[in-house]
Amino acid sequence: MKVALLGPAGTYTHQAAEEYFDELEPVFFSTIRKVFESDIEVKLVPVENSLGGGVTDTIDLLRSSQQEVTGEKVLPIEHCLISREDSIGDVEKVKSHPQALSQCQDFIAGHDWEQEETSSTASATEELSAGEAAIASKAAVNGLNLLAEGIQDNDSNVTRFLVLNGERGKGDKTSMILEPGEDRPGLLSNMLSCFSGHGINLTHIQSRPKKTKLGEYYFYVEAQAGRHQERFQDALQCLETYTRVEVLGSYTGDKT
Amino acid sequence: MKVALLGPAGTYTHQAAEEYFDELEPVFFSTIRKVFESDIEVKLVPVENSLGGGVTDTIDLLRSSQQEVTGEKVLPIEHCLISREDSIGDVEKVKSHPQALSQCQDFIAGHDWEQEETSSTASATEELSAGEAAIASKAAVNGLNLLAEGIQDNDSNVTRFLVLNGERGKGDKTSMILEPGEDRPGLLSNMLSCFSGHGINLTHIQSRPKKTKLGEYYFYVEAQAGRHQERFQDALQCLETYTRVEVLGSYTGDKT
Repeated sequence: MKVALLGPAGTYTHQAAEEYFDELEPVFFSTIRKVFESDIEVKLVPVENSLGGGVTDTIDLLRSSQQEVTGEKVLPIEHCLISREDSIGDVEKVKSHPQALSQCQDFIAGHDWEQEETSSTASATEELSAGEAAIASKAAVNGLNLLAEGIQDNDSNVTRFLVLNGERGKGDKTSMILEPGEDRPGLLSNMLSCFSGHGINLTHIQSRPKKTKLGEYYFYVEAQAGRHQERFQDALQCLETYTRVEVLGSYTGDKT
Repeated sequence: MKVALLGPAGTYTHQAAEEYFDELEPVFFSTIRKVFESDIEVKLVPVENSLGGGVTDTIDLLRSSQQEVTGEKVLPIEHCLISREDSIGDVEKVKSHPQALSQCQDFIAGHDWEQEETSSTASATEELSAGEAAIASKAAVNGLNLLAEGIQDNDSNVTRFLVLNGERGKGDKTSMILEPGEDRPGLLSNMLSCFSGHGINLTHIQSRPKKTKLGEYYFYVEAQAGRHQERFQDALQCLETYTRVEVLGSYTGDKT
């Protein structure tokens, strides 16, 4: 199956797609926006990392792009330091995707290295000069030197991906966008009471700017209920008295 | 007054500090983490942009660093395209800080330029080769060519800064960290009802990973009440029945 992914080959996104799809024909794009805009129907995109937080590009594009969320994949992340240098003492600068850099801040701060952001973890390994090292997946070593493994700040480093426009199931989880009109005191509290009032747990909530003016937000929410369930429909009916709601899709939650 | 800032000179942070402090002696650092760790007591840091959202490094460091929030400054952002090239047609690659790049995505996508992330908007103007352009403040032009002004996706581009360890006032706004223990259905709704129940509006709420395991969050919250006010103390007493609360400081909200 053809699947649109953030490239190049050898990224964690690639690894997640290999594990999720039985027969994967990956098609790589250089940005998350290009993945969303591609003609290839099925896509897999990162949505959250346990250290870096929400992937804001993905969340903003879910809001505006009319794609259906149909699946979830959770992948443990193990960052490696990869270089043309033989010794970690010869490294002066470290390159990687901003999320990977943010996930290794303790390790980087301990060496006081200069940092450079690249478009992906895998591409960082392709642009290495003397004195430079990349932070990337072990799958991206490709004949370079593996100077360190497991350099993330925290061993609980896990990235969660969403599958878009794949096979539909009933699902036990639902992603949605809540887009309130005018703000007033207590509005968020009232909206959330629609979930708690119908016994639905939220596994994720992220506020994002509407990009209209400072202080106006929409919310990306994941609820632990499928949209075929009566309690979900009750919560939705309650929510619609407070806010515009866009249901992005129901899917089976991956184990975390 | 000596103030620690994200450098180099000529960034929007620098401009915000010039406008906030009467007699500014800026001391520049290369990362937000280094600003937080510096011995200079008073600091000014970006906390939110109306297009890009929360500045996650700042929020995570507010949680862990025991600094007191004492002020707020709101700055309208006007991005410019700056280059050694004379014509916009000769530009093939655009460089800037990730937040500035994310704020000009429509403009960049229209030209299909390659993108490179730099550590600040101002430093992007210092590293320009042939065919390259920087996105930065007009204050960073310094003899280069100003190819375009106002290239942000949205004219509501505003960055909000917090002042740390400055002069204390009573204030009408309070920043705090809510750090719940075990999650359970309805917990966030219950916490927020402490604010709405005491008539306090939230101007900002941001969920951030605790960096322990996927699905565990803390919340950075800004409430429209000063901590000297009785209704704030009531809300606090209510909150403490649900979560650990760290009050980061009260301050006078800047006009937005």
